[in-house]
Order: sequence, then C-alpha cells, then structure tokens
Amino acid sequence: MNARPGLGQLGLSAGQKTRLHRILYQHGLRNGTALFLPYDQGLEHGPRDFFANPAASHPKYVIDLAIEGGFNGIAIQIGLAEKFYWEYAGEVPLVLKLNGKTDIPSAIDPLSPLNATVEDAVRLGADAVGYTLYVGSPAQEHDFAQYLRVREDARRLGMPLIVWSYPRGSAIDAKGGKDSFYAVDYAARTASELGADVVKVNFPHPEKSFDVPQPYAADFSSQQAIEAVVRSANRTLLLVSGGERAGDEAMLEKARQSMEAGATGLIFGRNVWQRDHSESLRFAAALREILAKHPA
Amino acid sequence: MNARPGLGQLGLSAGQKTRLHRILYQHGLRNGTALFLPYDQGLEHGPRDFFANPAASHPKYVIDLAIEGGFNGIAIQIGLAEKFYWEYAGEVPLVLKLNGKTDIPSAIDPLSPLNATVEDAVRLGADAVGYTLYVGSPAQEHDFAQYLRVREDARRLGMPLIVWSYPRGSAIDAKGGKDSFYAVDYAARTASELGADVVKVNFPHPEKSFDVPQPYAADFSSQQAIEAVVRSANRTLLLVSGGERAGDEAMLEKARQSMEAGATGLIFGRNVWQRDHSESLRFAAALREILAKHPA
Amino acid sequence: MNARPGLGQLGLSAGQKTRLHRILYQHGLRNGTALFLPYDQGLEHGPRDFFANPAASHPKYVIDLAIEGGFNGIAIQIGLAEKFYWEYAGEVPLVLKLNGKTDIPSAIDPLSPLNATVEDAVRLGADAVGYTLYVGSPAQEHDFAQYLRVREDARRLGMPLIVWSYPRGSAIDAKGGKDSFYAVDYAARTASELGADVVKVNFPHPEKSFDVPQPYAADFSSQQAIEAVVRSANRTLLLVSGGERAGDEAMLEKARQSMEAGATGLIFGRNVWQRDHSESLRFAAALREILAKHPA
Amino acid sequence: MNARPGLGQLGLSAGQKTRLHRILYQHGLRNGTALFLPYDQGLEHGPRDFFANPAASHPKYVIDLAIEGGFNGIAIQIGLAEKFYWEYAGEVPLVLKLNGKTDIPSAIDPLSPLNATVEDAVRLGADAVGYTLYVGSPAQEHDFAQYLRVREDARRLGMPLIVWSYPRGSAIDAKGGKDSFYAVDYAARTASELGADVVKVNFPHPEKSFDVPQPYAADFSSQQAIEAVVRSANRTLLLVSGGERAGDEAMLEKARQSMEAGATGLIFGRNVWQRDHSESLRFAAALREILAKHPA
Amino acid sequence: MNARPGLGQLGLSAGQKTRLHRILYQHGLRNGTALFLPYDQGLEHGPRDFFANPAASHPKYVIDLAIEGGFNGIAIQIGLAEKFYWEYAGEVPLVLKLNGKTDIPSAIDPLSPLNATVEDAVRLGADAVGYTLYVGSPAQEHDFAQYLRVREDARRLGMPLIVWSYPRGSAIDAKGGKDSFYAVDYAARTASELGADVVKVNFPHPEKSFDVPQPYAADFSSQQAIEAVVRSANRTLLLVSGGERAGDEAMLEKARQSMEAGATGLIFGRNVWQRDHSESLRFAAALREILAKHPA
Repeated sequence: MNARPGLGQLGLSAGQKTRLHRILYQHGLRNGTALFLPYDQGLEHGPRDFFANPAASHPKYVIDLAIEGGFNGIAIQIGLAEKFYWEYAGEVPLVLKLNGKTDIPSAIDPLSPLNATVEDAVRLGADAVGYTLYVGSPAQEHDFAQYLRVREDARRLGMPLIVWSYPRGSAIDAKGGKDSFYAVDYAARTASELGADVVKVNFPHPEKSFDVPQPYAADFSSQQAIEAVVRSANRTLLLVSGGERAGDEAMLEKARQSMEAGATGLIFGRNVWQRDHSESLRFAAALREILAKHPA
Repeated sequence: MNARPGLGQLGLSAGQKTRLHRILYQHGLRNGTALFLPYDQGLEHGPRDFFANPAASHPKYVIDLAIEGGFNGIAIQIGLAEKFYWEYAGEVPLVLKLNGKTDIPSAIDPLSPLNATVEDAVRLGADAVGYTLYVGSPAQEHDFAQYLRVREDARRLGMPLIVWSYPRGSAIDAKGGKDSFYAVDYAARTASELGADVVKVNFPHPEKSFDVPQPYAADFSSQQAIEAVVRSANRTLLLVSGGERAGDEAMLEKARQSMEAGATGLIFGRNVWQRDHSESLRFAAALREILAKHPA
Repeated sequence: MNARPGLGQLGLSAGQKTRLHRILYQHGLRNGTALFLPYDQGLEHGPRDFFANPAASHPKYVIDLAIEGGFNGIAIQIGLAEKFYWEYAGEVPLVLKLNGKTDIPSAIDPLSPLNATVEDAVRLGADAVGYTLYVGSPAQEHDFAQYLRVREDARRLGMPLIVWSYPRGSAIDAKGGKDSFYAVDYAARTASELGADVVKVNFPHPEKSFDVPQPYAADFSSQQAIEAVVRSANRTLLLVSGGERAGDEAMLEKARQSMEAGATGLIFGRNVWQRDHSESLRFAAALREILAKHPA
Repeated sequence: MNARPGLGQLGLSAGQKTRLHRILYQHGLRNGTALFLPYDQGLEHGPRDFFANPAASHPKYVIDLAIEGGFNGIAIQIGLAEKFYWEYAGEVPLVLKLNGKTDIPSAIDPLSPLNATVEDAVRLGADAVGYTLYVGSPAQEHDFAQYLRVREDARRLGMPLIVWSYPRGSAIDAKGGKDSFYAVDYAARTASELGADVVKVNFPHPEKSFDVPQPYAADFSSQQAIEAVVRSANRTLLLVSGGERAGDEAMLEKARQSMEAGATGLIFGRNVWQRDHSESLRFAAALREILAKHPA
Repeated sequence: MNARPGLGQLGLSAGQKTRLHRILYQHGLRNGTALFLPYDQGLEHGPRDFFANPAASHPKYVIDLAIEGGFNGIAIQIGLAEKFYWEYAGEVPLVLKLNGKTDIPSAIDPLSPLNATVEDAVRLGADAVGYTLYVGSPAQEHDFAQYLRVREDARRLGMPLIVWSYPRGSAIDAKGGKDSFYAVDYAARTASELGADVVKVNFPHPEKSFDVPQPYAADFSSQQAIEAVVRSANRTLLLVSGGERAGDEAMLEKARQSMEAGATGLIFGRNVWQRDHSESLRFAAALREILAKHPA
C-alpha cells in the first residue's frame, strides 16, 4: 500500500488547495477520499446510455442522486452546468468537463475537442475542471497543445485539473488495448508528468499481456498492478473509473483494491445510475463504506 | 408529453432571457411558442431553391412574408441582414445565422465555416444567433473549436444561441442516416451538453432503423421518438425543422406531434415560401393554429 | 412646431434603429412618442428622495409602476439592473444609466463618473444607454474623454445613446443658472454636436435672463424657448425631464408645450413616484394623454 | 430588366456610401454606372498576359489608360498601388485587391490568400477593396474565415467591398464548369449572402447545362440567365467581368445584355489592354456608350 | 509672394495626397485653392451664433449652402457628421473636427478635448480631420499628448490633418493677444513643427504690437505679416480663417492679401452663414473670385 499524499505535499497553489480541500473534506465522507459521479455520457455515447434507466436522461435526476448519495462531486459538460447547476449552487461540487466528443465518427486517432474553458469553470463556481487526454493517440500533438492551454489557465486561476487519462487509438489497440496494465500505467504516469492534479484511470488488467512491451508481460496480480499505477501517479491524486456497467461484486472488489493501493477515490457513473433509484443509492452506499476505511 | 421548461428555469442570463422573452412573448402568438422562417437556403443550396416560386428569391418578399404571417423571427445570413434588416428594424426578430456553406463540394466531413460574429448580431439588433453544428462529422474538432468561441461570445453578450444540430458526414450515413431516431436524438443531446439555448432538429424517423445502434433498433412510434428527443434536449428549447418541401398534411402532423411532445416551436422555410403567396400564408396560419393549442 | 424627425433620417445603424423602434413603437403608446421613468435618484440624491413615498424606495415597486403605467422604458443604474431586471426581461425596455455620482461633495466642477459599460447594457438586454454630460463644467476635458469611449462603444454595438445634457458648474451658475433658456439651449446643441441619439434636457426658463449672454436676454415665451431648444437638437430626439416635484398643472403644461414644440417624449421620475400609487398612475395617464395627441 | 437599387437602399454605412458615390457619380460617366479596369493578371497569370501588348506590362501605361479612357476605377494589388498610385492620387479611384495567387500550382481546391489589408486600402486612399472568393472550393472553410475578417474590417472602416465571386475547384468542374448559369448564379447569391457590397461575376452560359443541377438544365436564353443572376445578387451591385480576350462584338453584346438586366457596370481588363493603345480607347468608348444608356 | 508648394513636395503619404487632391482639384474651383465652411460654432459658442440667421441653426441648411456655394469642404463635429453627412455622401468633402469645447467655463488655460477619432473620420468617408491646438496655453502638455495620438493615427490611415492653430490662454493675453502678428506667426510655425498637413490661422494684426516680443514690435504692413506667416508654415498648407462677422470689404481684403501671400485658401464660417441665403452665396462668390486668381 502506498501512503496517499496530503494536500500540503502536492505543490498546489492556494486556490487549488482550497478547492480540493472543499471536495475532499467538506463533502462526501469528509475524510480525504472522494466519490465522483461522472455524467458526460450523453455527449460521449449519446442518449442510448439512458435507455436502461430513462429517468437518468434528466440531468436534474442525476444531480439529485449525487446529493442524496453523498458524492463529492459531479462531472458534467458546460451545457448541463449552465442549465442545471445554478439551482444547486454549491450543494455538491461541480467538476466542469472541458472537452468531449461524440462517438459517431471512428476513433483511430481520437482527440477530444474543447467546448469550454477554465474561465467558464470559475464563472460557474466549479471546484475542478476535467480534461480527457487520449494517451497514445496519433493526434497527441494537437491534444498536448490544447491541454497546455488548459493547464496554464487552471494554474493561473487556482483551479484543480483532473485528467481523464485514457489510452486510445490504433497504436494502443496494437499493444494490448486500452485497459492493459501497460497502458493504464503509462497513462497514469503521463498525467503526472504533464501536470494533472488528479488523474482518472481505468482499473488495470495485468492479464491482458498479449503484445504489451516485455516488462509488462510478466505475471502480476491486479493488486500489484493498481499499486504500481498509483506509484506512477506519485503526487497526482488518483481516481479509478468504473467504466461500463458490470457485476456489483466485481466493481466493489476493484474499488477495494484501488483504495487499498492508495487511490484517493472512485468515479463511477453508469454503474451507479444505469439502474433504478434505490439500487443506485444502495450501490453508492457500498462504495462509501469502502472509502470510509481509508481516511487520509 | 413533456412539460416545456419556463424561461426562468434555464439558467439564462438577463440579456438572454430578455431576448428570448421578446421572441416568445412579444411576437407571433405571444404564448411562449415560436414559428421561425429560415432563409439561408440561397447560400446552403443556391438559387435553385427559388425556382418553385421566383418571388422568394428576393429577401424583401420573404421578410414581408414573415411579418404578414406572424412569424416569431427570421433566420438569415449577414449579407441579407446588412442589406435588408435596417428597413424592418425590429418589426420581426432577427436570428443572425453565423455560419453556412455552399453545397457544391462534397460533404463527407462537413464543417460550416463562420462568416459573422455574435458582435455583428448585437450591432444589427438581432435577438438570437444561429450556429450549424454537424454532429458526427469527422471535422468535429474544428467545429467544436469554432462553436466554443461563439458560445462564449453569446453568453458574454447576453445573446441566445440557437444550434442547428444536424447529424452529417460519412459516419452518420453508415449508421442509419441523418434523420434516424438515433441520429436526431444524439444531435439534440449534443446541443444540450454543449450549451445551446435552443436546438433545431429534424423530425426523427424511428423506422430508419437499419444499421443504427442496438437500442434504437426497436419498434418506436414517431410520437415516442419525438418525445424522447425533447427529453434529450432537456432545458434546451427545441424547434423542429421542416426540411424539404413535402405534403402539407404530413408536415402538419409532424408539427402536431412535435408540439404535443413539448417542443417550443417550428422552423419551416421551404415548406412555407416554395409556393405562392396566399398559399404560404394559409400554410403558416395552419401552423399557428397548432401552436395556439400549446401555450407555455 | 418642428416636425419630429423619423427614425430613417437620423443616420442610425440598423441596431440603433431596431432598439429605438422597439422603444417608440412596441411599447407605451406605440406611436413614436416615449414616456420614460428615471430611477437613479437613489444614487444622485440618496434615499431622501424616497421619504415622500417610502414604497418607491423598492426598485420592484417602481419597475412595476413603469409597466402598469405604460412607460416606454425605465432608466436605472447597473446595480438595480443586475438585481431586478432579470425578473422583467423585456416587459419594459431597460435604459442602462452608465454614469452617476452622489451629491455629497460640492459640484463646482462636476463630473459624473462611469460605473458601467455599453457591453454591460448589451449583456443585460438593454435597449439604450444613458450618459450624463455636465455641459459647461470646468471638468469638460475629462467628461468629453469619457463620453468619447461611450459613444464609440454605443455605435459599434448598435446601442442608442441618450445623453442627460445638464448645464452645471460655477460658470453656469454665473451665467443665469442651469435651467435658463441659454443654458438648456446650449446643452441641447452640445449633445447633438457630440453625437447623442437622444437628448434629455430640462425645460428652459427664458425668464431667467439675468447674466445670460446678450441674445438670450430678450423677451421669449416658454413655448418659443422650447421650440428653439428642439431646433438646436435637430436630428437628436429630445426628451424633456420633469426635475423636482412640482404642481401637476405646471408639469402638464410643460409637457404640452414640449410635445407641441416637437419633442419626442418625457422623462419624469420624482413627479411620478413621489406620491402614492394610484396618484402616480393617474398622473402617468395624464402625461400619456398628451403624448397621444402627437403621434409620429 | 431589374431596377438597379439606389445607394440609399443598400444598408451602407456613411463611409461606404460616400466612397461608392464617388466611384459612381464623380468619375466615369457620373451616371451611377461603372467601368472598371482590373489589372491583377500579372499576379494571377504572370507576364504572359502582356505579350500581346508589351506596353501593358508597365503599370503606368495601364493607369494612364484608365484615366484617358474615363474608367471609374482601377483594381490592382498592393505592390503596384504602393509604387504607382501616389503619382495619380485620386485622379482615378483605386480598388485595392486584397488577395491573389499565382496560377502555377494546380487549382483543385483553390484559395486566394490575402496579401494586403483593408487598413492598407485606407492608408493609400482607396475607394474600395476587392476580395476573390472561390465559390464551391473544398477550401471554403479557410476562404470564409479569411473573408470574415475582411468584411468586418471593411464595414468598420466604411470601405466598400467588391467580391470577385468565382466558381472554382473540382466540384464546380464536375457540375458544369465555372461559367455555367448554375455556377454563376450560385456565386452571385453567395456574395450577397456573405455581405458583399458589389459582386463581380462572369457572364453566365446557360447552354453549358451538362451535369448541372436539374433546375438549370432547362432552356434559358443568355438574357434570361443574366437577369436571374442580377436578381440573385439582389441589393449587391453587380459587375460583369470580361474574362479572356474574345471578339469585340461578342463582348459588347455581353455588355449590352448585362446592363439591360440591371447590372451596375463592367470590369473589363484583357479585352481592353491586350491590344494597341488607340484600339483600347476605341473599345472603352464603345463600352461607355452602352453604359450611357443605363443611367441610375 | 511665396510660391505655394505642390502636393508632390510635402512628404505626404499616398492616402493623404489622394484626399488632399480630391479636396483641392475635384471640388470647388478645382485649381488647387480651397474654400472651407466651418460649422462647429454650435459647440464652440452655442446656438447664440445662429440668432442672426435662424435657418443656419439647421445643419442641413448649412451643408446645402456649402454645396450650392461651391465650397471645397465642410468642417463639422462627429454628431452632425453622423446625423447629416450620410445624406450627402461625398457631394462635398467632409472635414471631421475631432476636438471642441463649449465656451462656458473660463479659458485661462484652454484645452480642446477630443470627442472623435481619426478612425471615425475614415468610417464616415471624411477627406481630412481637424484638430484645435491652443498654442501658448498652460495646458499645452495635455494638448500635445492628445495631438500626438491624432497625428499618428492620421499618418497611419492616410488622413490629412488640418490644425486649427489658435494662440490662446493667459500668457498669450499678456503678450499682445491672440491675433497679434507675433502670436499668429508663432502658431503657424508650431503647427508646421508638429506635423500638420494644413494649418488654419487667424489673419495677423501687426499693429497689435503692445507687449509683444521685441522683433514683432517693429512696423509691418499686414501684407508683410501674412507673408511671414505663410513662410513660417513652409510646407504646411495655410488657410486663413474668417473669425467673427465683420465688414465685407475688410474680409475680402484679408482674403486677397492672404492668397497673394501664398495661402492655399480660406475657411470662413460666420461671415458666410450669419446673413440671409442669397447674401451668403453672393459673399462666397466674391471669395471664389479671389481664389480663381491664384491657381496652383
């Protein structure tokens, strides 16, 4: 297990520390862990993600769920933030997701274009911004250029920057895929190297070792893998994402291993709201129970 | 049927609310619904669209029609706005269309380039701006970048932003086409996620289910489809566009279903002015009759 | 009587014409005349002005009065506009007053400093901006410099500019005072020379002829004086202000002579709201009756 | 025949109107028509265009010709304007051509890059600027972006904008070619939609109907075609360009039909100066005779 | 007699030369001389200047007079230019006066504040800008700073700069007054030293020699004085102003001596329009007769 770094150790500016402190110690369990509800799938996948639970199509339903379920923040795009967040105004922290794309065209060399700015986030009272970086994409030249401006604005304005660090593109597909230990580990390190304050990664799958670079082809347990990933992130706080809907027990085990490894928290969307309301709350409670065992 | 959201619920700034209020409650039926006359086909398709009714080639004829027919606004490009709107000066609200393109080159990866700015709209006394977003286009990277600046200027200057949210491009063609329920639903949601105040969509065709993603392959009525689309738009007011000239009864049925589903209004161009003058007015009156049954 | 110039003759841009058309033909009597309610006395004189009718201390009371009384616009400072206008959003046109001052320090060389911008006015959905120019003030150097920027922004953004053209300062006091025919006439002309679209002046008092320049020392009736003032304003539309509370009949006579002389309208504040509610409405109705006799 | 619109109807700013008035009423025939001499072929085609009359290689020769021949303006690039126009200083109006290209690389997706600014034109005392828009080019995205800045500068500085509206590129070639009625008609409309004050088009060839969109495949006379093109330009004044050197009678007939159709004038270069001096003047006189029959 | 310098000798940019050529050779007598009508007295002195001929209060009357009287230009402030010049659009050249002040406060240390910019002049289609410089004023520090920006803008935009070079202030009063030979001579030279293209001066009075510096205390004829003043202006073209209304013969003699001395022209306002219409035209004709004897 890695010791989770304290906010005072991260080289944060006063504003970034203030906003992260608000997320980690004044919401949710108030113990330095975090459970986020991401809700950008309407853009990333389209409304089909809401067919399992049509109520979840409505942003108000989901924000209410975040509050009732004791989440530390909700991550949404500018449009929903403009239209819905004013009504909640600080009841749950806002993570403004700055970029996004539809999944309609092919994603051989993906890039997630900006549709909002750090200044929008300040204006809306957000406590963090989110940026999707497609690690390994042939389009990394544009991605890094775009990211650079975001990071600079975030630093200048004291806004914590959460990087959705996602291995993607043809080269990733050719080297073990997007959730191999190799790819996730590299993504965590990339975010740290590029100045993310918080990084969101998929849970690593060490068993997906076909075609990965040699050092990752050995025999690792998933606990070993996630611990290595947290180490790669070093002073970048790490969130593990839930990804597609899967079995509850598998998800909770992922969460347990992640927290055990020193992650700061979880960011689970579809596994939370693609079921009916009481089931959503029950599952969130189970996640919180895990976080409660890992105070800062 | 969805309840149409009130202007006070949309997170609008004072200026955006003032201008939308003017459109919805001080023109047309003054009941919170809207009937717009779009007149950018001279650029988008060329003068061939006016061969059915040559009088409609003249912008003055069409603006006069908008006033006589009790429309809530007219959507035109900068050139016609500069040359003709000064003469009307507020008699009918101006929606300045900020981008557009000719249909001469192929549209595999379409992008609609800007030819005017939000500041132009302010200067001309417009009450809204229009932007065409080609949802699903491989060019979405440039489209989003261009859109971002428009959205920020619109918000800064209190100008309502109407997004022509159009599924287009090779990937859309490969997944059921531009007016499938899938494509229209995704387009409505995308506009909402990206911060449109109003979205203009085509009427969805649930029967075009070949090659669409699985959840949309089921059996939906067109009423169910348009209701889902309105839900996907949530707090973005929705306008249904008329598209190509078609049979009157089919168009009116589309209009009825849209308003029943909670749409805010209609934006019908060719179906209005591609016929002689008295027929245009008669058809507009029929549309207004439908709107009259759906006060806010 | 002078012919009132039409909006098409004033060299207005499309946006300025649109916004003035809205004020003059889509609100109030809709006949090209205007009755404005100014409500900046809380800044200019302090709350003492509300002691006569404490209800008038509340901006909501006064805006409601403007709507109920059929006014063509309400002129307020940025703070009240931000806090109250969103609720009305276009029901009555907003004139954003861009400068103002307290009357606490002496006014030997008065200057009214800016506290808002034309862009604020655009953002809030205003239909005009107001600027106080202290004609004759030794501080005219700063006043003109400040005014120049306002005029250019107003022209650039298509916003009508209403100049409160007020003779003030020690030199004015030494030459017959602020409401002499000489001073008011010079003020009207100055606003026209400097590019105001609309000018607000006090009613001229030709009988105050002591110490005025020789040509004004002759015997003029007040009707002759106000006609000369309207001529001096030429293509700048002229509003006559009410000033301090006075007897109703005297005020109505002022209004009658002004409209007869070719003024576009009246801007009466204290005479309207420094009395109880029904009396305010009754007096506004009397003013409207006069305007109704002078359609454009 | 269409009525030619007056300068007061075009929504022009004072400066645009002043400069157009100067071109149309203070030079040439002073009757509201215009004959321009374009002289940018040295860039567009290279010196080969001057082999027919080597004297025409010298800009001074051509400007002298413009003055002697009673032209309303000369259209040149920045270099010749800097080097030669100071000597003439207002004797003949200057149209500064802002973009241009060599014809050395292929023109599958042509774009004419800027080499001067509207501010250059102001500085040199020009009375209009010219911009080549390649209608239908796959590069329209960059073209429109470049054009947008020119249009805004022109409007801001009161400078009339003449658009060389040229159908070009592979898609045009596949749909009937650059001087089909379809292409020229679309080009005229595009310039009007995008805010040109004046548009320069090729004379339309309705007989080139192979592969054009269906409505243009019918039987039109050239008189009908040019009348339709003038209608498509509506309040954008239209100039017909001469194009390549051709037989005099054919050119004069083109000119007659254009003026009959409501064009404002002609812009003939190679047909004027690709012959010896006295022949050039004789041909210009013949063109002026035609213009003289069509006063505004 | 001094030889009047030609436009090609003045170091002018192409645009400045074009615009001056237009004024000097395309309007008025078209012989290189100029007769200007200044009409800023409504601001500088107030409407009292119009009491002698009330019709002259209306700017339209005065611009019509300038055209009918064959003037080479009219000098007005921004407000009248915006409201009236669009109607004339180039029929008579516009000189936009950029600064001005009321005469209400005392003028011990006068400064004429800017109320318009060179860019306004460009936008309105003006052919020159005017700037009042108070030579000798204790406020010269602010005056020069303000002037510097105007001169730079004028040069950058190719706009001729006419300086109203007026000796004023307590120090001038103490040294012989504002129209002594000493003061006028110094003012002409100052304008030339500071980069004026054209300078407007009062006619010098060598007989006002009390308190002037010693070299000017000698016995000079007025012809000698005006010749010296023209020499002081060197390559700055010189205009003699009319000043207050005076006897016709005295004015014409002033004009004769000025032109004889090498002045480029005259700028006479009150002496022209402070009389009835036919008298105004008769007097202008007499002035033109004098100019006709001094072609360039």
